[in-house]
Amino acid sequence: MTSPNRQLVLQSRPKGMLAPGDLQLKETPLPELQEGQALAKVKYLSIDPTMRIWMAMDSYLPAVAIGEVMRSLGFAEIVESRHPDYKKGDRVSGLTGLQEYVVLDSKASHSLLQKVPKIPFVSDTVFLGVLGLNGLTAFFGMEIAQPKKGETLVVSAAAGATGSVVGQIGKIHGCRVVGIAGSDEKCAWITKDLGFDAAINYKHPDWKTKLAAATPNGIDIDFENVGGEIMETVLGRMNLHGRVVVCGLISGYNKEDPGLASFANVLVKRLRVEGFIVLDYASRFMEAGTQLAQWKMFGKIKDRETIVEGLEKTPDAINMLFTGANTGKLIVKV
Amino acid sequence: MTSPNRQLVLQSRPKGMLAPGDLQLKETPLPELQEGQALAKVKYLSIDPTMRIWMAMDSYLPAVAIGEVMRSLGFAEIVESRHPDYKKGDRVSGLTGLQEYVVLDSKASHSLLQKVPKIPFVSDTVFLGVLGLNGLTAFFGMEIAQPKKGETLVVSAAAGATGSVVGQIGKIHGCRVVGIAGSDEKCAWITKDLGFDAAINYKHPDWKTKLAAATPNGIDIDFENVGGEIMETVLGRMNLHGRVVVCGLISGYNKEDPGLASFANVLVKRLRVEGFIVLDYASRFMEAGTQLAQWKMFGKIKDRETIVEGLEKTPDAINMLFTGANTGKLIVKV
Repeated sequence: MTSPNRQLVLQSRPKGMLAPGDLQLKETPLPELQEGQALAKVKYLSIDPTMRIWMAMDSYLPAVAIGEVMRSLGFAEIVESRHPDYKKGDRVSGLTGLQEYVVLDSKASHSLLQKVPKIPFVSDTVFLGVLGLNGLTAFFGMEIAQPKKGETLVVSAAAGATGSVVGQIGKIHGCRVVGIAGSDEKCAWITKDLGFDAAINYKHPDWKTKLAAATPNGIDIDFENVGGEIMETVLGRMNLHGRVVVCGLISGYNKEDPGLASFANVLVKRLRVEGFIVLDYASRFMEAGTQLAQWKMFGKIKDRETIVEGLEKTPDAINMLFTGANTGKLIVKV
Repeated sequence: MTSPNRQLVLQSRPKGMLAPGDLQLKETPLPELQEGQALAKVKYLSIDPTMRIWMAMDSYLPAVAIGEVMRSLGFAEIVESRHPDYKKGDRVSGLTGLQEYVVLDSKASHSLLQKVPKIPFVSDTVFLGVLGLNGLTAFFGMEIAQPKKGETLVVSAAAGATGSVVGQIGKIHGCRVVGIAGSDEKCAWITKDLGFDAAINYKHPDWKTKLAAATPNGIDIDFENVGGEIMETVLGRMNLHGRVVVCGLISGYNKEDPGLASFANVLVKRLRVEGFIVLDYASRFMEAGTQLAQWKMFGKIKDRETIVEGLEKTPDAINMLFTGANTGKLIVKV
């Protein structure tokens, strides 16, 4: 094997948005495959807000070390195998890292890449979105939210890969679903195509008034992906005994944690606020994936992708998450 | 009836601590008792942080109106009765208001004052503390906390009427219990008399280091009575899947809600944060009261009182809650 592997290596921990050089493109010769190894070519990379946390600090996973290939999810295809479990042409999804090739090793204590089937009429990238961690996050987060028919659900980052599935699961449960997103185009997508009852563009100056008008019976569930002022405003409209699922706080990842200016609503309204990380539910991924696949097949869950071409464009793609430039699942085609 | 009723009436909504004149002493002639009414003489008033909220704004109860007798809990004795359910000498506990006499009316849709028994060797004031809302708050809050044997429980305002019971219930459940309080004397009381495993005086400059040393296995339960910097610091030491019972946020009642400078711990540590108000559990007060009375009788729960003499001293007593001048239950003897 003589072709080199192109990799994005973490060179410095970003302050705010990613700066040129935080991720450094590096060429490494591909190793000769040993007995028990397989080589997979990475086709698609999943671009997720949590990557910004992995670059910055230890959290629910250790921070990526300086000099290491940046951690990411991705979809890949086996191109050569001396591994007992994989053969050429097998398709895998999981922790590929930001690189063109990944070596699978049978001696590793557990595989980070799972074989996935070819689903007719469905793009392979579904394993990075609706049938990947985004769909699973929406599924288990909504389990924590305990939606009841007729309740009002508000989801922030509603046109994102997770938020868009959350709202559609809310509709399946019979909730009134209101999404908060950052452009009129995104708002049109989630109401017209995904069936949300209302959408609020938080960049409009009167968005708080519009949120109030769209939630005439208050808010029972806040599925929170953003934090900061958006969360603050939603908490102000929560009903007694409302549930707040803290799935993400993207407004804080690029700066000092903005915190919450007011915490009194939690007490006065007896809210239940619960932080969760989907990896805690790993033992139930199969169960959830089956349900999500069924919803996807029957058209109950629709999706959209924003695709950026070229591994070298990945740093820009990550920054797009924080400027809101993507609609639906953000993917880098390697 | 010719003797006047002395009452404290809400004259202006306090900013920060109570100022002279926020509560105005007023003499009103006592009305002639009508058929169906009873007159009770108030013996003791319960002084609670939540009164500061009732003065300021609508919350879980409507704010007290300007010109109205200030709402409070108290203990009273029937001195005259034309009411079918009460006779002279009956002892009652409930919403007396800050006044010397209270009229009970059978036409009122529900009575705000419950008859209570005389318990041998126990002061009547127990119905304002361990067997009153403080004890009930500790009881139901600890139900939300779901303490398990060997877990670490931290309670703030630990030498207060609620916090002191919370810690003792934690010991009954087999937890390691660490209290946070505002003086060495309070810390000595909760460790030596009440059996807390450790106590931290948050006025010592190195209290955060001491809290860390006292919680070597992290913190599983935060029973939060204070909020602000204390809550912030405790959240920083929470274990994965810890529970935060938000019972009070006294640090914020006298100023703008201090909020939370950091909210990321809730997400990263998958905390469950739950606000609660004991009134939601009214249907189960009898069950909890029975258990608390048993614990009290068998010496599993001990208490202490700080008693201020004279209705006119009530505004100073309310301010004592915020300067931390009381240990245990704060009571005004009328």
